[in-house]
Amino acid sequence: MTVRFAVFASGSGTNLEALLDQEEAEGAYRVEAVVTDRPCAAEDRARRRGRPVHRTSFPDRLGPGARLLAALREHRVEGVLLAGFLRLVPAELCRAYRGRILNVHPAPLPAFGGRGMYGRRVHEAVLASGAKVSGPTVHHVVERYDEGRIMAQWPVPVLPEDTPETLAARVLAVEHVLFPEAAAALARAVAHREGPKPFRWPEPGPPSGPGLRAAVRAAFRGEAGLPGGTVRGQAARAVGTVP
Amino acid sequence: MTVRFAVFASGSGTNLEALLDQEEAEGAYRVEAVVTDRPCAAEDRARRRGRPVHRTSFPDRLGPGARLLAALREHRVEGVLLAGFLRLVPAELCRAYRGRILNVHPAPLPAFGGRGMYGRRVHEAVLASGAKVSGPTVHHVVERYDEGRIMAQWPVPVLPEDTPETLAARVLAVEHVLFPEAAAALARAVAHREGPKPFRWPEPGPPSGPGLRAAVRAAFRGEAGLPGGTVRGQAARAVGTVP
Repeated sequence: MTVRFAVFASGSGTNLEALLDQEEAEGAYRVEAVVTDRPCAAEDRARRRGRPVHRTSFPDRLGPGARLLAALREHRVEGVLLAGFLRLVPAELCRAYRGRILNVHPAPLPAFGGRGMYGRRVHEAVLASGAKVSGPTVHHVVERYDEGRIMAQWPVPVLPEDTPETLAARVLAVEHVLFPEAAAALARAVAHREGPKPFRWPEPGPPSGPGLRAAVRAAFRGEAGLPGGTVRGQAARAVGTVP
Repeated sequence: MTVRFAVFASGSGTNLEALLDQEEAEGAYRVEAVVTDRPCAAEDRARRRGRPVHRTSFPDRLGPGARLLAALREHRVEGVLLAGFLRLVPAELCRAYRGRILNVHPAPLPAFGGRGMYGRRVHEAVLASGAKVSGPTVHHVVERYDEGRIMAQWPVPVLPEDTPETLAARVLAVEHVLFPEAAAALARAVAHREGPKPFRWPEPGPPSGPGLRAAVRAAFRGEAGLPGGTVRGQAARAVGTVP
């Protein structure tokens, strides 16, 4: 059974594209409609992939919620994915789709979220804090920004030479994998009317166990490479996701 | 050249013990004195290892700072390590040892810090948020709790079945490695009168690159194990730091 989703977007739509690519590979969900709040590249992507686009206006939080909800119901939408959507989701939608609205945020929450924290500013805040671990967060959406329960996170190393742009690019590459998988997990949960399986870190996680001390020592000495890490590291470097 | 540190502690002193063990192995620093604010197991550990203990009282922020600073100077202390110290460091010390005071916090900052966030409460907050990544943070100490720049972080997976106790134990095991290495890095920086080398994540980091999608997929399906991860995983399971 394929679950019917709407994707909300305000920007370039690369996460929308990743969701559409994964939709075809996965079959757990289908994007029935794309909702935008402004002219944006995401609209072009949606049209190229043959998905209806609803442009909606948000003069305030109370206005368009009922109309938008009616439009989603017309498409028999069962869940909502926020892929770079810069507006607060109307309260009517939060209630109607409780537990079925996911957002992806390009940094760990609750540390680097809240009103006004989007785009470049998120990565600037991460770098300013000195944090060594960033990475996307997928979370349930409630009426306040970035405050729903976390569904999934994936760590992305912050490198000494990172700029907001280089960090953003590495995090985005992980978003494009994490968010479609989270969407598929939500779809499976909706289809089976049960909670999704708990998210469990796979092996290999970050260095730990017997190799931990050597890994930590190398980190403090600014050394690249660890015994056994070379092949994976080279492959990963080739796609630009780890040092 | 061995740099002279004081360790401040209020609790069981397991991080103090890890610092003393690493001192002997490393030689970059020596713990010249242990400062406590209450009777605690850390005092017993210090005495067993032959280190002078200073018990100091903190009726308010302004009282004992000058006396404590004089005591540290008597021991020619060049830097301070806070290993489970539950008091605010007096402002005089923050100024005198600017850039040379490190604290270890048992969760990612800035997310899970601030006044009152210590011990079990930290791990309860992590679990309540749904975060999938925890792990210790080593940071520079300034006059307000947990607000200095981050020096190092290490991710520890949060497991679906974690309780505050099981999560605390896995994070503590990583603290016992991360904090002594951070202390040694600070000591090298003090000895050479230069900033420490930038902290750089070693390989293998978290799953990324070509293996990323398979790793993410496994995480959402609650599956343990990935091709290539088995041996490391078994070894790590043996010491209880990853699933």
